[in-house]
Amino acid sequence: MLALAGLPLGYRFSFIDPAADACAAALGQLKQASYEDPEALRQFTAEVDVATFDFENVSGRAARRVAAVKPFYPPVEALEICQDRLTERQLLNELGIDAPGFRPVSSRPELMAACEQWGFPCVLKTRRMGYDGKGQAILRQAEDLERAWQRLGQNDLILEPFVPFVAECSMLAVRGLCADIRFWPLTRNLHLDGVLLISQPGVLDQGLQHQAQQLAARLLEHLDYVGVMAIEFFIHGGRLLVNEIAPRVHNSGHWTIDAAVTSQFENHIRAITGLPLGDTSPTACSLMFNWLGNLPKRQTVLAVPGVHWHDYGKSPRPGRKLGHATLTAADPETLLQRARQLVDLLGGAWPASLAACRPL
Amino acid sequence: MLALAGLPLGYRFSFIDPAADACAAALGQLKQASYEDPEALRQFTAEVDVATFDFENVSGRAARRVAAVKPFYPPVEALEICQDRLTERQLLNELGIDAPGFRPVSSRPELMAACEQWGFPCVLKTRRMGYDGKGQAILRQAEDLERAWQRLGQNDLILEPFVPFVAECSMLAVRGLCADIRFWPLTRNLHLDGVLLISQPGVLDQGLQHQAQQLAARLLEHLDYVGVMAIEFFIHGGRLLVNEIAPRVHNSGHWTIDAAVTSQFENHIRAITGLPLGDTSPTACSLMFNWLGNLPKRQTVLAVPGVHWHDYGKSPRPGRKLGHATLTAADPETLLQRARQLVDLLGGAWPASLAACRPL
Repeated sequence: MLALAGLPLGYRFSFIDPAADACAAALGQLKQASYEDPEALRQFTAEVDVATFDFENVSGRAARRVAAVKPFYPPVEALEICQDRLTERQLLNELGIDAPGFRPVSSRPELMAACEQWGFPCVLKTRRMGYDGKGQAILRQAEDLERAWQRLGQNDLILEPFVPFVAECSMLAVRGLCADIRFWPLTRNLHLDGVLLISQPGVLDQGLQHQAQQLAARLLEHLDYVGVMAIEFFIHGGRLLVNEIAPRVHNSGHWTIDAAVTSQFENHIRAITGLPLGDTSPTACSLMFNWLGNLPKRQTVLAVPGVHWHDYGKSPRPGRKLGHATLTAADPETLLQRARQLVDLLGGAWPASLAACRPL
Repeated sequence: MLALAGLPLGYRFSFIDPAADACAAALGQLKQASYEDPEALRQFTAEVDVATFDFENVSGRAARRVAAVKPFYPPVEALEICQDRLTERQLLNELGIDAPGFRPVSSRPELMAACEQWGFPCVLKTRRMGYDGKGQAILRQAEDLERAWQRLGQNDLILEPFVPFVAECSMLAVRGLCADIRFWPLTRNLHLDGVLLISQPGVLDQGLQHQAQQLAARLLEHLDYVGVMAIEFFIHGGRLLVNEIAPRVHNSGHWTIDAAVTSQFENHIRAITGLPLGDTSPTACSLMFNWLGNLPKRQTVLAVPGVHWHDYGKSPRPGRKLGHATLTAADPETLLQRARQLVDLLGGAWPASLAACRPL
């Protein structure tokens, strides 16, 4: 999606991806290699004028190899901080940004002590390599400790209190090489088993929007960040608590392709290449639906007016994000009516999921 | 631009193009070959599920080779009729659709007789291979005949009266495999030396829109057409006169990428692959600027809010269409203000060209 946005801007693309079926292959030169492969990194670095990433589990070491030779954004420091939940939370603390409490855990006694501090329920998370709800366990009672430790105890961990949030949302923000910053409207997110299912922009109030913009700007400036950043929040007691930061374009910003003047992808490319940032205003009311594990019938779904289809060209695998659709409409009533039409066609868990997008 | 629209729909692309620097190469498999090369056509045809064209000077013979083996849209008959101004005009006559008068010319005496019939000024045009004002001569007086004949007389020709139009416009329409038809709003077009410079959708009245839709539907149905068709008109005496028909996506519809729910490119792909057609409503006020001969400085132009940049990746050549930009805004006043800001930056002939887009 970065390449699709960047090609009309006049750029050409090279990619490194370990997957043989990497969907970017249709849009440029693909090197199928591990992100750690020094020769692949050397060739890649020689070919490009500027480098970026859309997956934050690229190692800091690999990123530094590239950044030593060519401009590399977002900065490696931001990547590394966000790769470790502990350093990420420490940064938030340092900047006075609200987030759930946390305590590092690297042994059974530390886990017991942390559980005592936060009480139940609480959430045990790996510090590294977690995304889409992977590497997490909710501890509801003392009996859950041992199983969670068996599963996750070989990793560095943190324990957090469980936040009984009323909703989750995210802020997409972008900072350019000239330090200009733009924000898209907050997007409300509905997850299924830790994986994003529905994103709904434009439904949260201006107070939260203002809060999110203030703290996003603080983070972007502190990190001297260039590119798009996604900040995921819990909404709890009318406040935003940062759940996690993704130093990249983000699934909850996919609606911007079809329903904002400038998409997160185009603005990321504009940012890292030093072009002026584009207007982030919405052009329509929208809802984004993620296709997980399999794609619904394209023919059926496209019959609903306002459906924008995005097939990533990936082979199906249970739970894998294979694509998404953004539904747009000129007003909220038409959007809801089309959304009902769409989820009725989709069946399964979709009607209930849409119903769960109730007003706060 | 067809491939950029089709990739997210899940399609992959093969192209035939005689140019070594064909800009589609970045988006699929390019065969660099003449459209007439039988072996290239055979390989291409074997690879694809459905074939189309975005340049109407592909020969009917080449098109028939492909259409004999694989679905090919728009129909070869439509392509062939529109390749010859004489058969195109004859079809319009047959369907009772208004167009300028015409008379075929294949000798000096026929040219003299035709000039006598239409009087001066009149326009001599090659029947075939004309686009962007190529292969035309305006005859203002008897003295112009000989020079025009010297230049064009080796071709089959038609002579038309010169229509003193108040403006030119075009209708983009699309017909699906299920015979459903959609229309985008009429676009007013400003040409420079026969080449499109500015397209301005949404500024013509509903009476003209209705007239254009009626006759477009008649054409699409008569030809059992599938895909996008562009019909160019003169506006004269409050009526639409068809100037020419392009059986393909068209430069005057490029604004639909950034300012319509579904672009001409996506709907063309949807049509030829049998998907339901998408909504053609505009999402913003817009103006399209063509970049001819050279690209303005991207950095400068993108600083104007609402600019959407489209670089075709072609090498510069005097007068060549190298890209375009669509300017969008939420309302006409903001659009005009941004357009003035943009043309002031561009300088040259641009401010006068924009000023020529006066209300009718």
